[in-house]
Amino acid sequence: MPATTMKALRKVRPERGAQLESVPVPSIGPNEVLVRVRAASICGTDLHIYGWDRWSQSRIKPPLTFGHEFCGVVERVGEEVSAVAPGEFVSQNLRIIGIDQDGCFAEFVRIPATNIWKIDPAIPEHYAAILDPLGNAVHAVLAGPVAGQTVLVTGCGPIGLMAIAVAKACGSSSVFATEVNDWRREMAKKMGADVVLNPAEGDAVARIKKDTAGTGVDVLLEMSGNQGAIAQGFRALRAGGRASLLGIPSNPVSLDLVGDVIFKGATVRGIYGRRMFETWVQMTSLLKAGRLNLDPLFGERTSLEKFDEAFSLLQGGHAGKVLFYPNGKPR
Amino acid sequence: MPATTMKALRKVRPERGAQLESVPVPSIGPNEVLVRVRAASICGTDLHIYGWDRWSQSRIKPPLTFGHEFCGVVERVGEEVSAVAPGEFVSQNLRIIGIDQDGCFAEFVRIPATNIWKIDPAIPEHYAAILDPLGNAVHAVLAGPVAGQTVLVTGCGPIGLMAIAVAKACGSSSVFATEVNDWRREMAKKMGADVVLNPAEGDAVARIKKDTAGTGVDVLLEMSGNQGAIAQGFRALRAGGRASLLGIPSNPVSLDLVGDVIFKGATVRGIYGRRMFETWVQMTSLLKAGRLNLDPLFGERTSLEKFDEAFSLLQGGHAGKVLFYPNGKPR
Amino acid sequence: MPATTMKALRKVRPERGAQLESVPVPSIGPNEVLVRVRAASICGTDLHIYGWDRWSQSRIKPPLTFGHEFCGVVERVGEEVSAVAPGEFVSQNLRIIGIDQDGCFAEFVRIPATNIWKIDPAIPEHYAAILDPLGNAVHAVLAGPVAGQTVLVTGCGPIGLMAIAVAKACGSSSVFATEVNDWRREMAKKMGADVVLNPAEGDAVARIKKDTAGTGVDVLLEMSGNQGAIAQGFRALRAGGRASLLGIPSNPVSLDLVGDVIFKGATVRGIYGRRMFETWVQMTSLLKAGRLNLDPLFGERTSLEKFDEAFSLLQGGHAGKVLFYPNGKPR
Amino acid sequence: MPATTMKALRKVRPERGAQLESVPVPSIGPNEVLVRVRAASICGTDLHIYGWDRWSQSRIKPPLTFGHEFCGVVERVGEEVSAVAPGEFVSQNLRIIGIDQDGCFAEFVRIPATNIWKIDPAIPEHYAAILDPLGNAVHAVLAGPVAGQTVLVTGCGPIGLMAIAVAKACGSSSVFATEVNDWRREMAKKMGADVVLNPAEGDAVARIKKDTAGTGVDVLLEMSGNQGAIAQGFRALRAGGRASLLGIPSNPVSLDLVGDVIFKGATVRGIYGRRMFETWVQMTSLLKAGRLNLDPLFGERTSLEKFDEAFSLLQGGHAGKVLFYPNGKPR
Repeated sequence: MPATTMKALRKVRPERGAQLESVPVPSIGPNEVLVRVRAASICGTDLHIYGWDRWSQSRIKPPLTFGHEFCGVVERVGEEVSAVAPGEFVSQNLRIIGIDQDGCFAEFVRIPATNIWKIDPAIPEHYAAILDPLGNAVHAVLAGPVAGQTVLVTGCGPIGLMAIAVAKACGSSSVFATEVNDWRREMAKKMGADVVLNPAEGDAVARIKKDTAGTGVDVLLEMSGNQGAIAQGFRALRAGGRASLLGIPSNPVSLDLVGDVIFKGATVRGIYGRRMFETWVQMTSLLKAGRLNLDPLFGERTSLEKFDEAFSLLQGGHAGKVLFYPNGKPR
Repeated sequence: MPATTMKALRKVRPERGAQLESVPVPSIGPNEVLVRVRAASICGTDLHIYGWDRWSQSRIKPPLTFGHEFCGVVERVGEEVSAVAPGEFVSQNLRIIGIDQDGCFAEFVRIPATNIWKIDPAIPEHYAAILDPLGNAVHAVLAGPVAGQTVLVTGCGPIGLMAIAVAKACGSSSVFATEVNDWRREMAKKMGADVVLNPAEGDAVARIKKDTAGTGVDVLLEMSGNQGAIAQGFRALRAGGRASLLGIPSNPVSLDLVGDVIFKGATVRGIYGRRMFETWVQMTSLLKAGRLNLDPLFGERTSLEKFDEAFSLLQGGHAGKVLFYPNGKPR
Repeated sequence: MPATTMKALRKVRPERGAQLESVPVPSIGPNEVLVRVRAASICGTDLHIYGWDRWSQSRIKPPLTFGHEFCGVVERVGEEVSAVAPGEFVSQNLRIIGIDQDGCFAEFVRIPATNIWKIDPAIPEHYAAILDPLGNAVHAVLAGPVAGQTVLVTGCGPIGLMAIAVAKACGSSSVFATEVNDWRREMAKKMGADVVLNPAEGDAVARIKKDTAGTGVDVLLEMSGNQGAIAQGFRALRAGGRASLLGIPSNPVSLDLVGDVIFKGATVRGIYGRRMFETWVQMTSLLKAGRLNLDPLFGERTSLEKFDEAFSLLQGGHAGKVLFYPNGKPR
Repeated sequence: MPATTMKALRKVRPERGAQLESVPVPSIGPNEVLVRVRAASICGTDLHIYGWDRWSQSRIKPPLTFGHEFCGVVERVGEEVSAVAPGEFVSQNLRIIGIDQDGCFAEFVRIPATNIWKIDPAIPEHYAAILDPLGNAVHAVLAGPVAGQTVLVTGCGPIGLMAIAVAKACGSSSVFATEVNDWRREMAKKMGADVVLNPAEGDAVARIKKDTAGTGVDVLLEMSGNQGAIAQGFRALRAGGRASLLGIPSNPVSLDLVGDVIFKGATVRGIYGRRMFETWVQMTSLLKAGRLNLDPLFGERTSLEKFDEAFSLLQGGHAGKVLFYPNGKPR
């Protein structure tokens, strides 16, 4: 007999924190799919919701099960669903849960059939749970040539860390990374960065220029959204170089368009689309072939019950990605 | 017997204005070339020098013959020069004259052999004199796809006006142009712009959005360097669009990186190189094939003697390009 | 009261020719759309079916209404269709009719809703009827740079003729065309080709080399599928040039890979996809902006009744495109 | 006192074989450079000359010192040479020696100053000696996207083997290789190929299709010049895939243009340029960063005296690259 109730991590009151509750397993409509969550990853958005900041207060209507990065196995499909069947390994192809409707920090999650994305079963669960942010990193890195190129990653949050690994796997010669947080700089090293700099200590741009024979880097991957880091990144970019911008600044940014873009003849790409088909194929291919080692990124693999420790770990900046396994540890 | 003196338009004193003087024809070294100037065009830089603004005061050391956009015929070559011969139709491949050494507002000009660029004799003189700024326009337009694309040109100075003609010749579907000066808006129409707007009157962005079914333009060609125009241009650009930036802002520019670049997934190209080989070939090919009609651009074709009227005309914003013919009117 | 019978041009017996018959108006299923045909164009495939050649004999099962290039107005939609409504101007997005199911040489045609493609009503009917082959031409031309480039079109059937117009509209400097049929060479001139050559008379490659200063053309658009023309085209292509291959050879083709591709460092693109979204947008945009004049292409605009003359005209090579107007001449 | 005679490996008579002779050190003109050869590599062309095949008989005029792949240190420069100085680590930027003038299988070699190419001293000598063929491999691989792509290398001679290493270093997911020679298949494995097939045994195309879920490979790198291998390679290429052709067929090749190029919408690139600036920078950058391990390729590092064994080894197909060290083993 199928389960009728399940554990779910929920924001139940308009305040900081969350609660693990027992709720009914979602019932699905004719065009929906019920997925048994295998692994779910905590994203920056989830930290905002947990911490109940201004954005969350204006956007989230409790009670809500949150979480949107996950992978799972199809448990049941609605009567009109033919494109996917029970037992298939899946995720979602757009961020549609965890904000306006119940999310994936639960044993089961309900997804419209048109948003189901099948995942190659050869991809391990802990990687399958983070395909959404990894797609961002892959897209940012491969938005232009990277083989034999020098790369600077400004900002080593989870996507910046993944971008380091992707750039190295795709043949970049030297990867520089800047980051103020000590733990993240340590992680950047583990992910394969050749030179990791603290922009608060010493002149990072001067060091990068020196290491590139005065030229500057071929590629800038801006992952911080920080005005100072953006300015440093552009100063470190060589004439004719390429910048991929992914970090989201919270205010308008003042750029030296003349010196940093026009006179440099630079190409600047805004990176927003995440799971475009091409990115997905490249990413899946890199993962299946074992070309990407993202293991250092995963700080903790835990159960839903230990959610408070998990959020604390991330808020303290002491973990890359933390995974929940609502139905028990990996296959 | 060769001429020993010639007319030259010179800045002789550190003050506004210029003087037409008789000076010795330049003598050339073993690796230099003497060119008889056929047509010379007044550029914005020349206006600065004539007007003796702050930049000129800090950069120009009188006495100096100014002018750097020209075409001419080789008169004499130094003894070690073999790549070019008397009678060939030429210009220069880099801005090397008119600032630090004597320029082309004269009957003859001296150019190092390595900077001589041969011009196809099939190209008319008045076009050959402006290949330098035209190269900027061609490079800006062709830095990405333009056929079947909607284009916005912000700023209708000479390069903006040329860009309009180039975009139309290369298959752009609709070309929008914004410009505050009445005369230049009139010119934009003549160069082929489909919709010409005065950004000081009415909401130019709203109009462009309306005419593009709410989408915005595919391509932005920023030619003004004006903060307001840059902001408007980016707002009018569609998601996934392409911006070529060529206008030089005089101050750092504040951009809405999130809304205008990142969330739009836009590609922004700084346009600086001018006479790269590829651009040159495309431009020459378009000109030879008669695909570019730039005739409306030429306001006055005059002699060096009438330099005061020429500069007044341009400063009043009542001409696109004014040409001097130091050795008499065109072939 | 809606019509219950309609005229339809049908292959009723396994032999050369066709018959105009009165047949029931198609009834539509819940996911289908009934379209009132405005204009329908005769394609090469239709000539094969009419002539009952070997391919037709093996593929077509009479009785069948043939024809697949058309535009029309939605008459009725099935009960589950919501994406399109009566009165909309449409065509189909894949070749699905006229071979295995009844086609568009009739007053009405039945199309699955998922294959309906809406057309901008600003596009005239005679152009809307040929968007399918025009998409091929646009895709072939724009598969690489064309502005300021010299182009050779080998084979001036309808798609080759359209390609000439598209290349000129998109800024190609000189367009060369080769074709053995006199009438088609005449048409190539009308569509804008600069130099039109009969490969059976004189050395076409030598002439093209001479006109391009010995270099050869930048772009080859191969539209003939003819072994000799393919060989000529590649010989006329410059080092570093680009070839788009669209003509379908009936046998394996022997290429001088070393001299024509490898040592030339050429790029060769097979052109097959036709209505990819990007091509569609470019084409629609060029048409709406009036940048493409395809009018010379249209030889005859007639009624279904005059089908025998229409097919004769095309078979004799004396027309580009012939259109049927099953519901009366254009709006 | 500088040496006046030197050892040189020479073709002295029009017959198979070579002779090590003592000849005068070349004297240099005012625009030439004398290079002390550090390492020289035997290329396929050298094998032809040694074996005295038909091509050699028609092209080579004994006596001649042969060899053209090398690196060395500038010994002396002509009086007008200023761009390079004694002590610099160099090679040549075009194949200009070893055919029409004396080559590098000697202690010293004379090179025009305009053909001198400086090499970063951080690159080891055995790699610096093969930058010419490595440039071919890098160019072929990076002529399109390769990160996250499946790749097939047909033909595992030295350039094919290098291409395997380059593709893996630049993020290709799976590299397939086909080769009939046992030793070369063994080497392909060592260079990093994931699946190595003998096309003479079993159906290589079927195996590749199976391993790519029926799709075929994203990228074909054709290095064999063999008609059968070319045909197999194209059959194994996926729709929309990219082929780089570098192997030189000795006869015109019959291609199934329809099935292999047109209907596949494939892109085919002829690869000929070798040391274009961009390729050079990418290659140097990969080498300096240690991203390319080519060590398995080097079968023997020997002295000029042992030339007979060296050529035998290569002719038997039992070595990738054999290096001579005319001035003693590496630094």
